[in-house]
Amino acid sequence: MTIPVSPCSKGLMLLFVLLALHTTAQKISPYVQTTSKLLELPSKVLGETRTIYIHCPKADSTNPNKTYPVLYLMDGESHFDMLAQYADYLSRWDVNVIPQMIIVGIVNSKRTRDLTPTESIINYFGQPDTSKVSWMKPSGGNERFLQFIREELKPYVERHYKTQPYTILAGHSFGGLASIYCLLTHADMFQGYISVSPSLWWDREYVLKLTDQKLKKGAPLNKTLFFSDASEGVSDSSTFHTNLLKFDAVLAAKAMTGLRYQYNYYPKETHMTEPMLAYYDALRFIYKDWKNP
Amino acid sequence: MTIPVSPCSKGLMLLFVLLALHTTAQKISPYVQTTSKLLELPSKVLGETRTIYIHCPKADSTNPNKTYPVLYLMDGESHFDMLAQYADYLSRWDVNVIPQMIIVGIVNSKRTRDLTPTESIINYFGQPDTSKVSWMKPSGGNERFLQFIREELKPYVERHYKTQPYTILAGHSFGGLASIYCLLTHADMFQGYISVSPSLWWDREYVLKLTDQKLKKGAPLNKTLFFSDASEGVSDSSTFHTNLLKFDAVLAAKAMTGLRYQYNYYPKETHMTEPMLAYYDALRFIYKDWKNP
Repeated sequence: MTIPVSPCSKGLMLLFVLLALHTTAQKISPYVQTTSKLLELPSKVLGETRTIYIHCPKADSTNPNKTYPVLYLMDGESHFDMLAQYADYLSRWDVNVIPQMIIVGIVNSKRTRDLTPTESIINYFGQPDTSKVSWMKPSGGNERFLQFIREELKPYVERHYKTQPYTILAGHSFGGLASIYCLLTHADMFQGYISVSPSLWWDREYVLKLTDQKLKKGAPLNKTLFFSDASEGVSDSSTFHTNLLKFDAVLAAKAMTGLRYQYNYYPKETHMTEPMLAYYDALRFIYKDWKNP
Repeated sequence: MTIPVSPCSKGLMLLFVLLALHTTAQKISPYVQTTSKLLELPSKVLGETRTIYIHCPKADSTNPNKTYPVLYLMDGESHFDMLAQYADYLSRWDVNVIPQMIIVGIVNSKRTRDLTPTESIINYFGQPDTSKVSWMKPSGGNERFLQFIREELKPYVERHYKTQPYTILAGHSFGGLASIYCLLTHADMFQGYISVSPSLWWDREYVLKLTDQKLKKGAPLNKTLFFSDASEGVSDSSTFHTNLLKFDAVLAAKAMTGLRYQYNYYPKETHMTEPMLAYYDALRFIYKDWKNP
């Protein structure tokens, strides 16, 4: 037996088929993780345009004038996604152990130039690198790079974003060296300093010696500092780890008034895996006593 | 003295001014972190359309046919960004401790229904929750949820992405419970299992008892399992932590052939901060002996 199908019910059937197809079809679209921006910022100080990544917390509709601390991150191309994700996750309402933060990632142009304090050709193992073209050249531009942050980048961020006065400088390796150098020479620029595996070996321990010279015993230094290292110096028998121990000993001996600091050693991590744990621990340390207001 | 300005040089000056303005202007654009997609997948098994986040490694132009292990993550809305960032970072050429992976985040619709193995109204402290409307209701749909993964989600992912046979199931809390339940009842579905703070308290330790029943001493179970807990049960005097210790003891007593497992305890972390460390440690543990081919 066949049921006669009128043109009308045929149309109806087609509609059902189309509807059925529609409801069983998968839809795929881009997934937008976070509210981050890419800024091209021309710098007179550096004579070049710098790429900056800026990550903001999701807007709080109940508090549109809310302001945020700002973390300035060196090696933006390496660790910006990490810090943005850490800051978002740890400040979620159901995690809630640090405040929501703005993350500003500075992408390198000439990394060795910007993140080292002196001109030097002495390599990781204390030997002169006399090759004409070397990854160590040029070097010694950290002073100018900090000037760029102070006079151009920070004012831009403070003009365009809802910032709090509390700011953090964070870096890894040469960036860790630059973070300590900034604390020693321009402590007023930031309140918190994160230095993950600082390259204290640079220029025959220049910054290690500077630490001893600059810090006057018992003097006030109302800052927070987290520093760390991993298997460097153990895996490669360089002075990397002993330099960190010396730096830690200098801080202990100087007993600066108001300085809150923590040194973490991660012997199971490499120079490159360490940032994942160290940046987590650094944020937890800086905001140890923080309570959501 | 005034220098006469011709219309032409006026135009030239204007051009210079415009050029100067152009070179000092900041440019801002969206920052796209990762290559992730949002999929709306209709499920016949569940009778609803499910939202799925899919993260792929950046394409390798030197190896366009490269395939990847796949990690299936429960509570996608909570931990997808984290796992995507961890997988990308740890597989970078200069970090290189795990393979590049595809992360599939399953967003919850009815979380308690999908991630619990039995219907139960016994709450975290072992008391019946008799309220008509409760976050515990409905429950007991984990079997059907695993069927959805097995029959619909995995086939979709394997059809549309360059997958390897190696797959991991990862979850936290109820998701951790579901991960262990899957290992006990459908071990073939995955090769690796991650269970961060599993809610072994569910239904008077149902899954804990099932572990003892299902695992036959010395039987083959060629799987990798990472499980962990944090301050739960210490901070709240529940049986959370003692349940984990019991589970660990059962695994030791059963001495399954081929089972590689690790239990991490994070007493300083909360139920919600723990995933940041546990997912890191889980990936490192699963790929402990991995070498980039």
